Amino acid sequence: MITHPAYPSEPWTVGEKGLDLNVLAQSESVFALSNGHIGLRGNLDEGEPHGLPGTYLNSVFEFRPLPYAEAGYGYPPSGQTVINVTNGKLIRLLVEDEPFDVRYGELRSHNRVLSLRDGVLRRTAEWTSPSGHSVHISSTRLVSFTQRATAAIAYEVRPVDGPLHIVLQSELVTNEQLPPTTDDPRATAALTAPLQPEQHSAHDARAHLVHTTRLSGRRIGAAMDHTVHCPADVQTSIECSEDTARLTLTTQLAAGQPLRVVKFLSYGWSSQRSIPAISAQVEAALALACATGWEGLLADQRRYLDDYWAGADVDLEGDAEVQQAVRFALFQVLQASARAERRPIPAKGLTGPGYDGHAFWDTESYVLPALTYTAPHAAADALRWRHLTIPAARKRARELTLDGAAFPWRTITGEERSGYWPAGTAAFHINADIADAAIRLVQATGDEEFDREVGLELLVETARLWSSLGFHRRDGQFRIDGVTGPDEYTALCDNNVYTNLMAQRNLRGAVEAAKRHPDQAAELGVDDDEIAAWERAADEMLVPYDVGRGVHPQAERFTDYECWDFEHTRRDQYPLLLHFPYFDLYRKQVVKQADLVLALYKRGDAFTAEEKARDFAYYEPLTVRDSSLSACIQSVMAAEVGHLDLAYAYLGEAARMDLDDLAHNTGDGLHIASLAGAWIALVAGFGGMRDSGGSVAFAPRLPGPLTRLTFSVLWQGQRLCVVVTPAQATYSLGGGDPVELAHHGRLFTLRPDRPVTYPIPPIEPGPRPSQPPGREPGRLRPRRA
Amino acid sequence: MITHPAYPSEPWTVGEKGLDLNVLAQSESVFALSNGHIGLRGNLDEGEPHGLPGTYLNSVFEFRPLPYAEAGYGYPPSGQTVINVTNGKLIRLLVEDEPFDVRYGELRSHNRVLSLRDGVLRRTAEWTSPSGHSVHISSTRLVSFTQRATAAIAYEVRPVDGPLHIVLQSELVTNEQLPPTTDDPRATAALTAPLQPEQHSAHDARAHLVHTTRLSGRRIGAAMDHTVHCPADVQTSIECSEDTARLTLTTQLAAGQPLRVVKFLSYGWSSQRSIPAISAQVEAALALACATGWEGLLADQRRYLDDYWAGADVDLEGDAEVQQAVRFALFQVLQASARAERRPIPAKGLTGPGYDGHAFWDTESYVLPALTYTAPHAAADALRWRHLTIPAARKRARELTLDGAAFPWRTITGEERSGYWPAGTAAFHINADIADAAIRLVQATGDEEFDREVGLELLVETARLWSSLGFHRRDGQFRIDGVTGPDEYTALCDNNVYTNLMAQRNLRGAVEAAKRHPDQAAELGVDDDEIAAWERAADEMLVPYDVGRGVHPQAERFTDYECWDFEHTRRDQYPLLLHFPYFDLYRKQVVKQADLVLALYKRGDAFTAEEKARDFAYYEPLTVRDSSLSACIQSVMAAEVGHLDLAYAYLGEAARMDLDDLAHNTGDGLHIASLAGAWIALVAGFGGMRDSGGSVAFAPRLPGPLTRLTFSVLWQGQRLCVVVTPAQATYSLGGGDPVELAHHGRLFTLRPDRPVTYPIPPIEPGPRPSQPPGREPGRLRPRRA
Repeated sequence: MITHPAYPSEPWTVGEKGLDLNVLAQSESVFALSNGHIGLRGNLDEGEPHGLPGTYLNSVFEFRPLPYAEAGYGYPPSGQTVINVTNGKLIRLLVEDEPFDVRYGELRSHNRVLSLRDGVLRRTAEWTSPSGHSVHISSTRLVSFTQRATAAIAYEVRPVDGPLHIVLQSELVTNEQLPPTTDDPRATAALTAPLQPEQHSAHDARAHLVHTTRLSGRRIGAAMDHTVHCPADVQTSIECSEDTARLTLTTQLAAGQPLRVVKFLSYGWSSQRSIPAISAQVEAALALACATGWEGLLADQRRYLDDYWAGADVDLEGDAEVQQAVRFALFQVLQASARAERRPIPAKGLTGPGYDGHAFWDTESYVLPALTYTAPHAAADALRWRHLTIPAARKRARELTLDGAAFPWRTITGEERSGYWPAGTAAFHINADIADAAIRLVQATGDEEFDREVGLELLVETARLWSSLGFHRRDGQFRIDGVTGPDEYTALCDNNVYTNLMAQRNLRGAVEAAKRHPDQAAELGVDDDEIAAWERAADEMLVPYDVGRGVHPQAERFTDYECWDFEHTRRDQYPLLLHFPYFDLYRKQVVKQADLVLALYKRGDAFTAEEKARDFAYYEPLTVRDSSLSACIQSVMAAEVGHLDLAYAYLGEAARMDLDDLAHNTGDGLHIASLAGAWIALVAGFGGMRDSGGSVAFAPRLPGPLTRLTFSVLWQGQRLCVVVTPAQATYSLGGGDPVELAHHGRLFTLRPDRPVTYPIPPIEPGPRPSQPPGREPGRLRPRRA
Repeated sequence: MITHPAYPSEPWTVGEKGLDLNVLAQSESVFALSNGHIGLRGNLDEGEPHGLPGTYLNSVFEFRPLPYAEAGYGYPPSGQTVINVTNGKLIRLLVEDEPFDVRYGELRSHNRVLSLRDGVLRRTAEWTSPSGHSVHISSTRLVSFTQRATAAIAYEVRPVDGPLHIVLQSELVTNEQLPPTTDDPRATAALTAPLQPEQHSAHDARAHLVHTTRLSGRRIGAAMDHTVHCPADVQTSIECSEDTARLTLTTQLAAGQPLRVVKFLSYGWSSQRSIPAISAQVEAALALACATGWEGLLADQRRYLDDYWAGADVDLEGDAEVQQAVRFALFQVLQASARAERRPIPAKGLTGPGYDGHAFWDTESYVLPALTYTAPHAAADALRWRHLTIPAARKRARELTLDGAAFPWRTITGEERSGYWPAGTAAFHINADIADAAIRLVQATGDEEFDREVGLELLVETARLWSSLGFHRRDGQFRIDGVTGPDEYTALCDNNVYTNLMAQRNLRGAVEAAKRHPDQAAELGVDDDEIAAWERAADEMLVPYDVGRGVHPQAERFTDYECWDFEHTRRDQYPLLLHFPYFDLYRKQVVKQADLVLALYKRGDAFTAEEKARDFAYYEPLTVRDSSLSACIQSVMAAEVGHLDLAYAYLGEAARMDLDDLAHNTGDGLHIASLAGAWIALVAGFGGMRDSGGSVAFAPRLPGPLTRLTFSVLWQGQRLCVVVTPAQATYSLGGGDPVELAHHGRLFTLRPDRPVTYPIPPIEPGPRPSQPPGREPGRLRPRRA
């Protein structure tokens, strides 16, 4: 946990004053730059010290063994792990005869600032070498949103006093030595030096390296070029070998004289293109970047972000920490997805190797709802990626003796790579989550082409899956037995409410899509009988209810289970999965993360207000929030049932997950879904936005500390803006056609440039529910207004 | 499957005519000799060809990696695998200048006979070498029941015609090269040449080798000595190196002149004793064996077996195949256990490396019921071994946050080594199975010392486990959720009827034992409150019942599940677990092996006759018998409910499991539990013997083909003999006190030497239940009378 005030709360920046080597890995994640295609961890320019060096390209991975103590049918034979590709961030500095290394000499000042508006990471440092020579160093790094293959660094060094000999080495380094992450020697063998050299070349200030992975057959090109500015004479040399390219600049600078280098980087990869094609590709990207120039890249970056923030920004009054956190969150969600372009959005984005770089249901259930209303092109691209993986998902379904498509629980390429099936393959709800995301995107954007080409087939194939996964009991009831819902402290349960309700939406969505596009549906083999079967399954879907307790069991029998002994669970025994066997967790009433409560939010149309209040009150004391996916959902539902202070506490936790390292693993990469969850907590929670059923409704209501909440959503291509104060909400529309909306259940039509304002009705919640002892939500630091 | 008539049906032998190299591995298992301490696979004397060379010592194993694709709390960090120790069976023969190898030259005849009365394996062969020289070879091999550390081989070779140069090499060979069994290079590394040399010595005709395992620290000594008989001159030399000792005998024999060698072997191992102690131990055992001499060992072996058969034999009229099979079964059960002496009885005995040499619940649930009534000292020893492992089981219980002792699902040393917890650790019923075996042993033998020193603590610790594993719901009901019953096609279910009923017996058994031995119970910390809690848990134990269908669900909700699609399951898709995911098997009505039906047998006192008939009829069409543990139990219950032909068909399958290689894996070792099951099917099935509730009852009834069934059981040290014919049953008692018995529910007192005869009442079963298509029970070959 980051226990020092690392990142002061600024509205549009995340900054770090000083350099605490104990949280180096965490800061590398927080300061990671990415455009969804390239990801650079926030490693220091000079490479060392580091928590974990990291340069990632979306979908560049290596296979590794996936061993089983006892093998089973259908277990994935091998795993996939994101790999650290050629590091182009390196700019090493020699001051007189001593390398700049913050661990030696004296670091007189060190500041890093991530600018959320500019999309750059700025660093300044003043350092005195062990022999007493002082230099001022500054660097600015960007990964371009507008040129997908491009990153760039502007680096400057100035002697503080006295003339100094300065040597800069700007490098490309492949197969960096990494800290060990596994004790399996076969995996280590596969992941140590995973890249085989194929080509290297250097001339003038330019070099490139081409490598390929051993097993997965990914060919990777990395190239660099430089412009150098210096009032003094600079000697330049370049050299290159299989795994290293190095430009060396040597000069003598007077006090205050700057040596300034702009390093342009480009990356490309392919599983099909030849060595010449890849090297040409990265050289071309480099040529474009050089032609654009540093200032041009900076300006393009700012324009891209100005456009994004215009539609996406959430503005708060009353909580500077959350204000900063939600902008950081939106920035990172964009970084994870903006240029992913039909590649997955991994759980950690491209900020670290956590979860092997895999994508999960997080994408569709947490990230896409935010992207759909803020950067819909990126949401569409992510679903187009899923669509491209339908052949693998169909094959998996056949392997599982099911119809349709069974999308993987975790993957890079679209093939199932989960090594523990009860909390992997059995979590079939991911298929309904994908369908839900497709339904939402079509509804929010009105994108008919997407609906026809992508959405329809996703819905049809997943509906077919549900049709074969469940069955009608003799009395008609449609049951889905033996699957795992979102809560990973319960597995292989019968008729999980979330799963069944989401499957119901999936089936109905498929029916509607097939009726919208009858010709395309017919091409997919859909006929009237199939549509009727989907309708019947949806209509007769079982939603278990515990009449005695007056609540919905998370799954059949759940509320009959023994309650977890929270009283005798020590605080250092969380997360529970590290201290108790799955066996014990699965069979007791203890909830890792919102599951039934997630259903209350995602399928709010299926519950009455009273049911929501009772269900929420029942599950709060059982939910330990050992997953970063929980707090935001609990925030949403706490707000809906009127526990605004509780909702606010959950919001704080969700928003500050990574900035305060609340899950103790930010060093492995950011929690992109939890970051998206900060947006969900604000917009769906305090904004009360709901989008089920073809329209948008709001039920805004602020917690005490927040005096104003302003957010926008993109709806049918228009910007719909909501300003909430404690007493009222004002809705306005940027242009286009009038929109039918609801405010706390009251329907109204919003017309362009005709804002309307409604008062916010009061709510009387029941007693505030308690949480398991020690698991009350909260931020680390006192809130500052 | 052995599809040639390999083993003609003889009542007291299992013989093989000719040598089919395609079933070599199977015959090595069938002809394995063991006394429970040493196990020698039936490899040819000359070592090659072989299916799998095997020499095992009970509990000599090596650790190996137990890898997990995704790790979890409480997963065993390493596995244990039985290892092939020093091979002392080798006697190689050179005829003129050509090695005797059945793959070359001409094998004019080859016969092997396992004598179930003599306890030896006899082999005769006539072979003509590629250059035309013929020899007659005979060998007799035994593993001594009376001298635990000893095996011996009498080997003789005679030229058929013309004088021949003959060389015999008698060897000890350590670290034999084995066929690969795993693709994990770490496991291969651990198990290739697992024995490190420590000492070797040879003089005269005697040699020994001492080795130790790398990780598990087992020190192993193997020694050999020889006597040589030959009318011609024999030159003798002996040599020895780290992994090999070799006695070489060279002679020239005239036609018909024999060279006869008796090879005495001894083995010893320890995890504590020093090199000198181990070498002395094996030399001493060897000295005793030599002093006893070959004829003496043979005579002792016969006496030991005569004594065993007097109490254990089952005599049949009407089915020669089953007659042979049940004697083979009883012989192998004895071989697996006779001298195990507080070491485990592995699932494969010491006949092969299957299941890594682990012991499972098979021991207590299948093997011990047979041993209790035929060789009670061996049953007691097996339970004493469990008792010795209580510290490990207590530690495991604590790790699982449970009270008492949690015995391992699979193990060699007593520590859990299961790598798949849903079908391993979660199968807690093994604890009740151990308790059940202890209750049965005390009841059958009246062994008070065992009861006090072993049984009590086993019962108390397992009762404590159940007490913490289950809980009383608000209405009092005692529930055991989230555990796995015997059926491995269902896992993590709630209130498995078998588990709950066996736990109930366990709890009540603990109450009674604590009351029998109040002082010892107090020493174990048992007080009145604890006893009362056990009684209450037993009294309020939930036994689910499906009122609508009028049957017991195997576990709660089971009968509500979708039925497996047997109709579209191809015959080559069995066993199902190799062709379908656990996910699908677990959530449907498909049963791998008797589970509820096992409860009907083991806890028959908890069901009415009508319930048994209905339940049996319900589960037959769902049970695919993909486990070798099923047929015998289905036989017992089919007999009880009156489906005698069906019971007879199941008996045939259980009895011929290994002789006909019905499970296609006899080559890895015999199915000791299924072999014991042949006894169970005859004695509990057609003999109708039941032993719940402190007394013994019989309800014999023969199927058409059987005209007489005679068996004995040892009860309170006396031999109780039952002779069943189609019309009547005669009971007689060898001596001792009168015994209270029941015949088809009619109570009577049986006095020594006062046989009584009762008629057998008729039974009218309902319609014969069907099995899943293609899974009807049956033997491979037509039955011969």
